Amino acid sequence: MTTKILMILLSVALLVASLRVEGQQTATDGPRYTNGTSLVRPTNYREWPFLGSGLGLTYEAEGGSAAAPPAFTNTFVNPSSYRAFMETGRWPNGTVFILEIRRSATEAAPNNGGRFQAELSVLEAEVKDARFPDGWAFFNFGRGTALTDVAAPLAGDAVARCVECHTKQTAVERTFVQFYPTLLEVARQKGTLKPGF
Amino acid sequence: MTTKILMILLSVALLVASLRVEGQQTATDGPRYTNGTSLVRPTNYREWPFLGSGLGLTYEAEGGSAAAPPAFTNTFVNPSSYRAFMETGRWPNGTVFILEIRRSATEAAPNNGGRFQAELSVLEAEVKDARFPDGWAFFNFGRGTALTDVAAPLAGDAVARCVECHTKQTAVERTFVQFYPTLLEVARQKGTLKPGF
Repeated sequence: MTTKILMILLSVALLVASLRVEGQQTATDGPRYTNGTSLVRPTNYREWPFLGSGLGLTYEAEGGSAAAPPAFTNTFVNPSSYRAFMETGRWPNGTVFILEIRRSATEAAPNNGGRFQAELSVLEAEVKDARFPDGWAFFNFGRGTALTDVAAPLAGDAVARCVECHTKQTAVERTFVQFYPTLLEVARQKGTLKPGF
Repeated sequence: MTTKILMILLSVALLVASLRVEGQQTATDGPRYTNGTSLVRPTNYREWPFLGSGLGLTYEAEGGSAAAPPAFTNTFVNPSSYRAFMETGRWPNGTVFILEIRRSATEAAPNNGGRFQAELSVLEAEVKDARFPDGWAFFNFGRGTALTDVAAPLAGDAVARCVECHTKQTAVERTFVQFYPTLLEVARQKGTLKPGF
């Protein structure tokens, strides 16, 4: 009898523990704020799903001179939002995009003419969250050699062109799904692409 | 007294459960084989840590013509091996690398001259596993439009150049850490780079 009770207790505890682990994963991969709307820089985004990479894609807001070598742009998204998109073709509230801008390099054997990724130049984020008047907000964590731990949402002139381009030129909601091949296929199947894509 | 015993039992059960969950993660993200050494294609590798992307990097074995547009090469690694590398600068037994070769494209607004990633062309894998005579093996899952579910390790002439290049030209063990900026820094700190890197 005692053994039976112990087995039942153990089963309940295992269930509680597994739910607890699952709950933690879901709860911790969305945006974290200080002061209500300042985004805490995610430190583990390199373990998040990678959406795509571009070389020399021009996002106007960055400015760089035409003479500079082209930069790589890597995009990552928090895991729970990635899984939601793969099922629905839409981004849930609490989606965090991280944009890495990295220097491109050529000088390493056995490479012969191509380009690979080097130092981080700039780190930015875009977040979908109903707490923002617009539903979305943009953040800049600064230069790769001196990242800030927290960034306030960009406002005014600093964000006007981000918002315009992410509104008019994006394939799904405010995101450049046209550049993310595995997501593009899902959005096509789910019918969530904007007209013209 | 009964409450105290219950609390102790619950704590033990929670510990067992958490170890069990951790064990499962470790066990399921490594290589899976059929017939001993044929690798089952991981279907969730797009949720694995991304290591880096190149554009136009020439891996001799692929052979594409010089007139073709340059291809993107994305590398992913299984999560538990990624975390092990970040702590030690070395790859544990059971490490799985996935190499995606993707077409590059230019024709999508608001892009103006840069290149982004498009359809999957080829999917390959490299595995570190003591079951192979050499300690490492290479696999080709074929063209992106007709991937195989399982691949036997490449042998003979089909793998000779892979092995030579991955032996002589790689920064850490048989892997091109010189092209993976976040890993390169770790390998430097841990002192696991080969001489010359």
